[in-house]
Amino acid sequence: MEIKVLEKGFIRLVEVMGDDFSAVQAARVSYGKGLTTPERDKKLIFYLMEHGHHSPFEHIIFKFHIKLPIFVMRQLVRHRIASINERSGRYTEFSDEWYIPERIRTPDKVNRQGSVFVDDDDLNSEGIRLIEETIEKTYQAYKRLLEMGVARELARIVLPTSMYTECYWTINARSMMNFLNLRADSHAQYEMQQYALAVAKIFKSKCPVTYEAFLNFAYTGDLLKTEGCL
Amino acid sequence: MEIKVLEKGFIRLVEVMGDDFSAVQAARVSYGKGLTTPERDKKLIFYLMEHGHHSPFEHIIFKFHIKLPIFVMRQLVRHRIASINERSGRYTEFSDEWYIPERIRTPDKVNRQGSVFVDDDDLNSEGIRLIEETIEKTYQAYKRLLEMGVARELARIVLPTSMYTECYWTINARSMMNFLNLRADSHAQYEMQQYALAVAKIFKSKCPVTYEAFLNFAYTGDLLKTEGCL
Amino acid sequence: MEIKVLEKGFIRLVEVMGDDFSAVQAARVSYGKGLTTPERDKKLIFYLMEHGHHSPFEHIIFKFHIKLPIFVMRQLVRHRIASINERSGRYTEFSDEWYIPERIRTPDKVNRQGSVFVDDDDLNSEGIRLIEETIEKTYQAYKRLLEMGVARELARIVLPTSMYTECYWTINARSMMNFLNLRADSHAQYEMQQYALAVAKIFKSKCPVTYEAFLNFAYTGDLLKTEGCL
Amino acid sequence: MEIKVLEKGFIRLVEVMGDDFSAVQAARVSYGKGLTTPERDKKLIFYLMEHGHHSPFEHIIFKFHIKLPIFVMRQLVRHRIASINERSGRYTEFSDEWYIPERIRTPDKVNRQGSVFVDDDDLNSEGIRLIEETIEKTYQAYKRLLEMGVARELARIVLPTSMYTECYWTINARSMMNFLNLRADSHAQYEMQQYALAVAKIFKSKCPVTYEAFLNFAYTGDLLKTEGCL
Repeated sequence: MEIKVLEKGFIRLVEVMGDDFSAVQAARVSYGKGLTTPERDKKLIFYLMEHGHHSPFEHIIFKFHIKLPIFVMRQLVRHRIASINERSGRYTEFSDEWYIPERIRTPDKVNRQGSVFVDDDDLNSEGIRLIEETIEKTYQAYKRLLEMGVARELARIVLPTSMYTECYWTINARSMMNFLNLRADSHAQYEMQQYALAVAKIFKSKCPVTYEAFLNFAYTGDLLKTEGCL
Repeated sequence: MEIKVLEKGFIRLVEVMGDDFSAVQAARVSYGKGLTTPERDKKLIFYLMEHGHHSPFEHIIFKFHIKLPIFVMRQLVRHRIASINERSGRYTEFSDEWYIPERIRTPDKVNRQGSVFVDDDDLNSEGIRLIEETIEKTYQAYKRLLEMGVARELARIVLPTSMYTECYWTINARSMMNFLNLRADSHAQYEMQQYALAVAKIFKSKCPVTYEAFLNFAYTGDLLKTEGCL
Repeated sequence: MEIKVLEKGFIRLVEVMGDDFSAVQAARVSYGKGLTTPERDKKLIFYLMEHGHHSPFEHIIFKFHIKLPIFVMRQLVRHRIASINERSGRYTEFSDEWYIPERIRTPDKVNRQGSVFVDDDDLNSEGIRLIEETIEKTYQAYKRLLEMGVARELARIVLPTSMYTECYWTINARSMMNFLNLRADSHAQYEMQQYALAVAKIFKSKCPVTYEAFLNFAYTGDLLKTEGCL
Repeated sequence: MEIKVLEKGFIRLVEVMGDDFSAVQAARVSYGKGLTTPERDKKLIFYLMEHGHHSPFEHIIFKFHIKLPIFVMRQLVRHRIASINERSGRYTEFSDEWYIPERIRTPDKVNRQGSVFVDDDDLNSEGIRLIEETIEKTYQAYKRLLEMGVARELARIVLPTSMYTECYWTINARSMMNFLNLRADSHAQYEMQQYALAVAKIFKSKCPVTYEAFLNFAYTGDLLKTEGCL
């Protein structure tokens, strides 16, 4: 299962341990499956989620392979209850892949750290052109520095945070729900939101009952409440 | 895979995510498997372990179902980088299962918090009889309290820490190696050692290369270095 | 600052790092204090709490010395985002201190894992006498085992979870608020609640504005909402 | 206490909770100070460090205010057992401060991801000039984008990882020792090393006995073993 995010990024589900049943199994500390009916299992999942008993959801674990701009990575890595390994820019050369927005965003007057899309064609074309040119030139300087013999770890400091990087990200469902609360939300940066939506889509497809319970009882964000958001 | 531990306990592997290849895959942030040879993969695993690059091993995750005395559980739960759910003594009645040692141990003169087995038959029989009688009477009092109508959460406070309890324990290979460093070691309490040895056995069977690398480069304990210990 | 809890336990504040201002300082990444007015600081604390920006509260840290029954300790230790060191029953002999409830509790018909106090004088006196006698005899057996030469780490397995133990517990304000959400709540066991109320009292006295903001915007429990609970 | 790092960065100790005595106090779960002699305290600190009993050191906590390039911040933030708040580039405009190396480094032939300083004057002057020009132009483009009305969170994606940012970083001594093992080491990037050395200097000045014990028994890096390194 792989979802394209932004123009060149992706989230790919590498592996998942457990399913909707796993939280039930852990909460009951039960020997096997099948002791109760699906209806009772679902009821327990809803009960756990509603009453803040979230620890059983830690026994469901997702492993993702993600390609994302550095500025999004900088936000992802703040979620400490997860395991992350990023491609090293000290060891590997950055390829010529960076993120260019499709449209320009201007400051949001309500949410002072946020932004809104603009319809101004001139601003869009001029702004995007300036972003493209700047990054293009910067990447050329990076390549030139490498040709001159400068070490990768030093040459890369000129590169912008729009550069794509890749990581492996393993996170349990409880920590992932916390991630969605903060990032699948209109206060998150637009590009981060796109990755959060893709995570939510994979979560829903693998654990539909848990996802439904999450949305009903524990989700504090807004984006996932919109019909057809995924 | 289930291993009996002590006379009534067990460690059962419920699920495992990943294998020897997983750390390699995460360290390389690679798209798939099979890009390199098994020899190169093994070499990388050894390199990572030797040079303290342990984060890729977090992407291998074990889920266990464990039956263990409370006094061992009290040590297990101290390993914070793990997910744990224990059967609730507030919700469920304790059954008549407790741990009785096969032989008495006396204080170790070298390791002041440790102990050594004794050959003194009188001490063994007298000591074990006293332990058995005491716990048996205590359990009867617990049952009597429940019959009188005392709430489970209150009646249980008379029960000894030798009572068996059960838990689900999900832990990544990196944290598990730290657990083995401390608990698969002669400084750990004998009963804890038995559980640690069972964990090591399961680890070895699922990730033989990682286990070999661990023993060669990162293991700081002593028990696992003995030939035939598992 | 030390608060007696139960008849023989206590919570003692050893040290605290930071105060109400600390979250503000961290959130603004500011060079010093005094750049803004107390009114604006308070407003920011309320804003952070209301909008789920809880990470700045991690920079306020409390260190407690706690004396508590083992069965309460078993719940305390489940809060993983904290540092804990407990007196070792392997190294030190348990003294003759255990918890005896003042009144008996019977199962709560609504909250199936909870309990309610009873007014039945016979049940109270008979129940408490049985608890006392059982623990007293158990402790005598423990002492007898030690006299026989049994190692402390083995002799202690007969001791009940009502025995008092002691620990050092260092926890940041964010994790402490999560602790209060779960433990300063009528669903927690009565004895745990008493410790949680003492923690809340210390929290309030050291960070009154943060505590007020917590109760207004982030507290999900019920006990602290009662007038005069502290 | 504030230490300049690189040409424009710094590490400033905001607060520290505890001192050399704190680990002793936590390990003994003692009521107060002064029960034993300084000699016995020091002996215990050395014992704990040597035998891998590192949890008592979690009760010593440092709070730093750090100014550092983004590419160093990206490494700092990987240490998950710490609390961090960074100045937001969504909320605040980046000022014209970036890191320019004093000398160029070329790839290290031994350590493939590392680098070594060069004496080639031409390469030094040409390399540094190219880095300076590139970043200067990029920053001008950033300012131009802001003038055009582009939102800060979007305009900043052109900025290089050499830009200075600031954060509050609270970390306990145990996690800090792990940080020093990895970052006060010749395998770390040169710029990261400078921050690690400053952290070590502050650690040593506040907890001289713990620092001495760390270097003797638990430090796995190399830089701090050099005479006069701090």
